[in-house]
This record gives sequence, C-alpha cells and structure tokens, in this order.
Amino acid sequence: MKIAVLGFGTVGSGVYEVIKTNYETITKRAGEVVDIKYVLDLRDFPGNPVQDIITHDFSVIANDPEIKIVVEVMGGVDPAYSFVKEALLKGKSVCTSNKELVAKHGAELLEIAKQKKINFLFEASVGGGIPIIRPLNQSLTADEIDEITGILNGTTNYILSKMKTQGSEFATVLKEAQELGYAERNPEADVEGFDACRKIAILTSLAYGMHVDFEQIYTEGITKITAEDIKYANALDASIKLLATSKNVDGKVYAMVAPKMINDKHPLFSVNDVFNGILVKGNLLGDVMFYGSGAGKLPTASAVVSDVVDATKHMGINIMTLWSSKHLIPADMSTYESKFFVRVPLGEEETAKELFKIAKVVSVPDIDGEYAFITEKMTEGAFEEAAKKLSIINRIRVEF
Amino acid sequence: MKIAVLGFGTVGSGVYEVIKTNYETITKRAGEVVDIKYVLDLRDFPGNPVQDIITHDFSVIANDPEIKIVVEVMGGVDPAYSFVKEALLKGKSVCTSNKELVAKHGAELLEIAKQKKINFLFEASVGGGIPIIRPLNQSLTADEIDEITGILNGTTNYILSKMKTQGSEFATVLKEAQELGYAERNPEADVEGFDACRKIAILTSLAYGMHVDFEQIYTEGITKITAEDIKYANALDASIKLLATSKNVDGKVYAMVAPKMINDKHPLFSVNDVFNGILVKGNLLGDVMFYGSGAGKLPTASAVVSDVVDATKHMGINIMTLWSSKHLIPADMSTYESKFFVRVPLGEEETAKELFKIAKVVSVPDIDGEYAFITEKMTEGAFEEAAKKLSIINRIRVEF
Repeated sequence: MKIAVLGFGTVGSGVYEVIKTNYETITKRAGEVVDIKYVLDLRDFPGNPVQDIITHDFSVIANDPEIKIVVEVMGGVDPAYSFVKEALLKGKSVCTSNKELVAKHGAELLEIAKQKKINFLFEASVGGGIPIIRPLNQSLTADEIDEITGILNGTTNYILSKMKTQGSEFATVLKEAQELGYAERNPEADVEGFDACRKIAILTSLAYGMHVDFEQIYTEGITKITAEDIKYANALDASIKLLATSKNVDGKVYAMVAPKMINDKHPLFSVNDVFNGILVKGNLLGDVMFYGSGAGKLPTASAVVSDVVDATKHMGINIMTLWSSKHLIPADMSTYESKFFVRVPLGEEETAKELFKIAKVVSVPDIDGEYAFITEKMTEGAFEEAAKKLSIINRIRVEF
Repeated sequence: MKIAVLGFGTVGSGVYEVIKTNYETITKRAGEVVDIKYVLDLRDFPGNPVQDIITHDFSVIANDPEIKIVVEVMGGVDPAYSFVKEALLKGKSVCTSNKELVAKHGAELLEIAKQKKINFLFEASVGGGIPIIRPLNQSLTADEIDEITGILNGTTNYILSKMKTQGSEFATVLKEAQELGYAERNPEADVEGFDACRKIAILTSLAYGMHVDFEQIYTEGITKITAEDIKYANALDASIKLLATSKNVDGKVYAMVAPKMINDKHPLFSVNDVFNGILVKGNLLGDVMFYGSGAGKLPTASAVVSDVVDATKHMGINIMTLWSSKHLIPADMSTYESKFFVRVPLGEEETAKELFKIAKVVSVPDIDGEYAFITEKMTEGAFEEAAKKLSIINRIRVEF
C-alpha cells in the first residue's frame, strides 16, 4: 500500500514516525506493507530521511495511480479542501486529522467517498488519540444517542485544571501554558471555544446522521472565568470544565460549548490537565466514557495511522455512511434548561431573590462584597431576562 | 436480515427489547430490517409475544437457510459451543456475549469464521456495554499494546466500593449485594476473580494475536480483603480495586488478576460501584480509557445488537482476524515486579526491616498490634521467599 502524506508539520512527522516505529504491527494489522511514497510540503528538509520523498506539487500525488490513500494533516480549510476533494474524486481514500475541514465539508466529502466506494476517515479530528469516531460509527449502533458531552480541548482543560490547583488567574496560567507549548501564541481558537465547537459539530453530525453547521452552535469560551469563580467551585466540591455538549431533549437537539460546574458524580470530573474525555449517553446503553490524550504528535498520528490501516483493509468498500448533507438545525438555546451559579454585588440580594428560585447560597470566606447563589433549573431565555435587572459579576451553568 | 437468538434469559430478552425499542435506528445503521425469526429456549413463555417464535430445537435454526446470523446468549460452554460451531460451519455469523465460550474456544471459532468468510463477534463478552473488543481490533491498530488493565467485574467493584464507603466487612457487603441482585447466590466466579480472568484472557489474546489460556493466568480474588485493609488504603488516599492486567515487559507478557491499591493518579481510580473501566496503554498512543456499564441486561444486549448490525453490514467479509490458535504462555509470575503493602504482627518489625526495603510505614489510629508498610519494587518470587519468614496478616500489591 503506497500512501502520500500532505503536510510535514507536527502530525505529519508523527505519522512518519508511527509508521516507521510500529512497522511490523501495522503490516500485520493492515494485511500488507504500508509505505509512504510522497510527503507534500512547501518546505525542504535537507538531512532528514523524508527529504527523498518530499514533493512540492500535489498533482504528482493526485496523478499517481499507485497512491491509494492520501493522509491530509496540513490543517485549515484551504488548500486542504481542494486537495482532499481531488484525491477522493480520483478514487483515493483520505484519512485526515483536520477538524476544520471535517466540520465544514464532512457531509460532501463523505458523499463523494460513498459514491466512489472508497473511504473518508477522520478518527484523529476529535479527541486526538481517543477512539471516538469509529466507536460512534460502528459500535454504538444499537442505541439512540441521547447526549454527547466532551472535554474536547486540551489547552482549556489544562488552563482550568491549573487555575484550580494553583489558584491563579486565567491570564497567568495562559502565559505559563504558552511557555510550555500547551497553548498557541494566538490562543483564541482554544480559549474562545471555537476548537471544541468544531469537534462537537462533528460528533453531533455523526450521532444524528445530519449535518450540523458549527456556526449555529452556541459557543462560550473560558476567558471570563476568574480565580474567584474557581474558589466558589471549590467550596461546592465542584470543578469548572469547558464542556461541549449536544443533547436530544424530546426530539430537539441542543448543541453548545460553555464552561460548566460539575461535581464528582459526573464521569468527566476527573479528566484533568491536557487530557480529553467524551461521555456518550445511549437510550439503552446508559453512560459510556472515552478518555485519553486529546492532542499531541504521536497520539494524534497513531489515530491517523489507524485510519490508514482501516482504509487499507477496506479497499473498494465504503465503511462510513451516516452523515447526510441534510441540515440539523440546533434547537433554540433560549428554551434550554440549566441551573446557574450567579454572583451579584451585595445590595442586590433582595432583587435576586425576587427574580430567581434560589436553590443554594454559596459563600467563600475570603470573598466579600457579593452575593452568590445557584438557581433552580430555568430556561436560558428566562435567565437572560432576569439577569438584565442585576449587575451580574459572573454566571456559570451548573450540572449537578 | 433474519436472525435467531439462543437463550431467552436476561441478555436474550434484552436483545429482543433492544431490537424492538430501537427498530428504526438499527434499520438505518444496519442498512436493512433486522428481524428475530426464532428464539431458542427450553422453556415456553405463554402470554409473552416471544412465544410465537420460540423453538426448542436448535436444528430448526441450523437448517433454516434464511437465518444468516445467530445470537448466542445462553452462557456456559455446553451446549453453546456445539451450537455456535455448527452455526458457523453452516455459514451463519455468530454474535455472542459468552465470555466462557470466547475465552475457551475463541481462536478456533474465529478461524472457522475466517475460512467461511463470515463473522464471529463478541463485543459483549468483555465490559458489557463498553465498546472495547471492536476498538482493540479496529481502532488501536497503529500501536503496540504495552498494557491492558481493567476493572472487568462489576460485582467485585461494587463490593470493594461499598466496603470503602461503609467501612463494612466483605461478608456483610456481599450479603447486601446478593439481596440487591448485584451478586449471585453462588458468588464464587465473581469474588474469586474467575470472571475477570476469562475477560482479561480474551483482551490479551486480541492484543497480542495469540491464544492465552485463562487457566494460565495468575488469579486472586477479593475474599481476603478486610475492613482493616480498606482503612489502611484510606490512610494512603488509595482504593483497593480488583485489577485484571496484562503487561508486556521487554517482550514477556505477564497476565494476572489481583486486588491492588491505586491512588487518584490512576485512570481507573474513579471507576466505582458496578461500573467497569478498561485502560489500554499503547507504545505511541499513551493511555486510553473506556468506561461504562460492565453488565446489566440492556447495556449488554445493546453491545450484542451492535455486533448484529456489524455482521449485517459485513455479509461475506470477515472483519475479525487477529487471534491465532498459537499459544501465548504468560511469563513466570515469580519474575513480575511490584510494590507490596504488608501487615505483620508487632514484634516482627525488625525482621521485616531486614527482609524488605521499606518505602513507607503506614499507620491507622484505631488499628494496633501490627506493623504495616509498603515495600520498594521487588519480584513476586523474592516477596514470597521473604514472606515465609513472617506471620503476614495480609499483603496487597501497590500500583503507586
């Protein structure tokens, strides 16, 4: 099996390393030798063994009939989309780790793969090394999916975990994370929840077999979470986690990304640091949870190569079928019900008590000048309406 | 797709219920309608809708060419083995939840399925509703498996969890578990570790592609764990869990079932009550963990039906290939290295200090008359040798 790898960045060089290191295992599992014939990159890598197979021209790959599988690990929508589409149209299976590409064009690319009797696989696009796409597609097939909730972004989980253990502010921990390489120089995609949003769009599309537009998913990041919020969470024996969720409530599918408080009854409570976890609730199966490294060169590359093995074993047979181009419009968030943790300045207690059904008042010894509480379950719409009448310091949804 | 279900006990009636309840989802996923044509049981079920399709004679099923998939959920090796073998030889795919059958005859039955270009699938045999067999076979294919460690038995996990939260003795909690239906009247298979042993035999055989005889796996149950051991564990911020493990150490595969102390750094630490969890360590992937209901009528039945969906989609294509009849002999346990938590009577401190490198002394306020400690890492053989010279009250392996 001759393959081409598009992009020799972190994941691309990881794919090269995985195939070299686990050559024997992969050959045994795939049923034949998997060999990288080309690596596409704009750069040259003099002195690196990959130099001999570097090409700068995608058409060399597209027009080589010996290439049956293309691995796309460039990231970004352009030119990845045009390369992937051309490869599929030429009858080559594609394995990708590119969540932007899958979230935006997944339905169309899957449809081409289906027509061509080849495969478009993207295990590494969500949860890095954690098997979740294939289990959703092939294992959880006897159940209706009631809910998927994931900690899908390692950077924000690292930041929130450190804010908790160190008591530090967001900006301080972000800076440390950037120095350690856990957060990018421009951290917006992670900390504003955009990365998690694309990933939950992919999982939701797979779970319900219809295309969910990631731009229609309510998305809130973690930039407004403060050290004081964490202190309140600690007082509640809770943690604040950035949860990406889609939930089927009486046939309406809600989808959202937002920081939420969870306690130790929640299966994702102990998913800390850069780890990811994905909870799937089936109507008969109950809770199933998948946990592991959500990013990182080798775990992600390992997931890409598992797709290469699968594509090799399934030449001429399309195995991913469920994700039509029919649109699934997420339900109106204003009807979604949650409990809210709310902080208002002292002096607004009485107004708060009039506006909300208060389930619990929360106090922390060294925070004063404010009144903090958890509401009973209420809709987002009713919350927003009531919140207008208060000088809310912060509010975080509560899942217990 | 016409199928037959062998056995209308807990799992069998669950399979019937799953197929009725999620009829639409299953049809969509399988690509065709899945219909139960026969249920084999010695009993009749007057008044139950299943009565119309009950048969007492397996040959009716074996000789009906319309039946392409047989679901075996009778349990036990006989007559399950002869029914399953006959079905496979007649070209019918088989889906089973029967861990005894798979552990004992898996290699042979997989070989028949491969020759006949059909499938022998057993997702539900380990971890109930948790997808683990298919991920091991199809997702974790780019990695060499360094370790699999699972909490694979819900009954013992429930007992150990309750002993911890209630401070009760084993016998007391076992009785409660029996009353609640979480433990069987004859609990031996669970509490002596035999159930977990068969399951780790299956996972190890799949991970290394060779047959591991469950009788060669070192197996120790939880009957000797006392309320005092739990107190010591609490003092160490640890939990005692029945762990089933296989581990590749420099090419030697160790396999064992034994109660072990783990702390909150271990991914299985928060797997409590009747839940199961399975940790897989890949050489490049790192840790991946799967969590969910390890037993129960509907979760187990859901896993069986996911196999039926897979078998339906793969008529004429064998998808499980790796588990040869070549034997993998587990490495000699006497060379396996662990730390040990050890309790000896007061008066033996000096002897203990001579015999062991002591890493930590452990004391609990209300236990006296004894000296408890954790050793440095040492081989099982060296431990056994030293232990002969002491009046050991109890000893538990430690994983931190």
